[in-house]
Amino acid sequence: MKRPEPVEKMIEAFRLLPGIGPKMAERLSYFVLKAPASVSEKLIDSIREARETVKLCGRCYNVSETDPCAVCCDQARNASLLCVVETPQDLLALSKVKDFDGLYFVLGGALSPLDAVGPGDIRVELLINRLKKDKILELIIATDTDSKGETTALYLAEQIKPLGIKVTRLGYGLPVGGDLEYADEVTLTRAMEGRREI
Amino acid sequence: MKRPEPVEKMIEAFRLLPGIGPKMAERLSYFVLKAPASVSEKLIDSIREARETVKLCGRCYNVSETDPCAVCCDQARNASLLCVVETPQDLLALSKVKDFDGLYFVLGGALSPLDAVGPGDIRVELLINRLKKDKILELIIATDTDSKGETTALYLAEQIKPLGIKVTRLGYGLPVGGDLEYADEVTLTRAMEGRREI
Repeated sequence: MKRPEPVEKMIEAFRLLPGIGPKMAERLSYFVLKAPASVSEKLIDSIREARETVKLCGRCYNVSETDPCAVCCDQARNASLLCVVETPQDLLALSKVKDFDGLYFVLGGALSPLDAVGPGDIRVELLINRLKKDKILELIIATDTDSKGETTALYLAEQIKPLGIKVTRLGYGLPVGGDLEYADEVTLTRAMEGRREI
Repeated sequence: MKRPEPVEKMIEAFRLLPGIGPKMAERLSYFVLKAPASVSEKLIDSIREARETVKLCGRCYNVSETDPCAVCCDQARNASLLCVVETPQDLLALSKVKDFDGLYFVLGGALSPLDAVGPGDIRVELLINRLKKDKILELIIATDTDSKGETTALYLAEQIKPLGIKVTRLGYGLPVGGDLEYADEVTLTRAMEGRREI
């Protein structure tokens, strides 16, 4: 016995999404079949609307309904301070930092030699062009602290320091609200190095 | 800063699916935005096609493109032997059992007093009507072996035995290819009870 062809196709489509394995794709497909029509309509309509209306801001490459986006247009921000992140999700998280009033730049990923992701596959050149064109005084590198993010940070620092721009990296240390007992060695070592007088 | 409204809507839509939390919904949404158009098109088209063409067979309630489905129409099958399962996925798994040539019936769930799922919420009445109308000699209960499935099996047996139909349950025991060391006590006890001469 086989599944109906359209169910197979739906399972295949769900499997294209990240983190969705064969069992999960099957579960989602049967759920979509069984659920009220409003569920499948919401999915279809929201995907179509987002694909049609959301674009990338041509200055920071964050997702936005306008180009340039509201942040890049904001004259109250410090245009000489730029913070580079890997993804729009990272940008959103950082936007909650109250003390930062600079602008952002979304790289669109991180360098990963093992996955064959080189500088040409993320927006390194666009970033460097922007740094040269605008009068950026400081670039804050806020890539992830995993090995890909670290590699990217080091690579960017190497490329950008010769331009005479101050390059900084977000501080390492203990996450707030965490239990010291469960912190890993590397984090503890970095926290010790970065200790501050109180 | 907020996400563009259409992105928020897409995240909300993904969250309607089972097993998709807020972080996963966000990840899927940004993926769909960034992926080639073919990915979102496949998702949209396959969901729409499946919703439009796949129906339930009016005899066994399995998903099918025809009503009645090919299995229910198959004259070579033993129409006096019925196997009841919880979901279409369970039916598909059982259809790989070569020795079974009977028909199926999909309950559409299991009894779960804690989730307020009673006999009226699954196809108990439709099953009993079918057993009365067709000349079923044996009903094989193949609900899950978790507590909901067991409750459902006991409830069905109670309702159906008075009709003079033989009611059986799939055998319990060790799964094939498993390591005895990791089998739980209950399974081992059932396997001991169900031991067979070789």
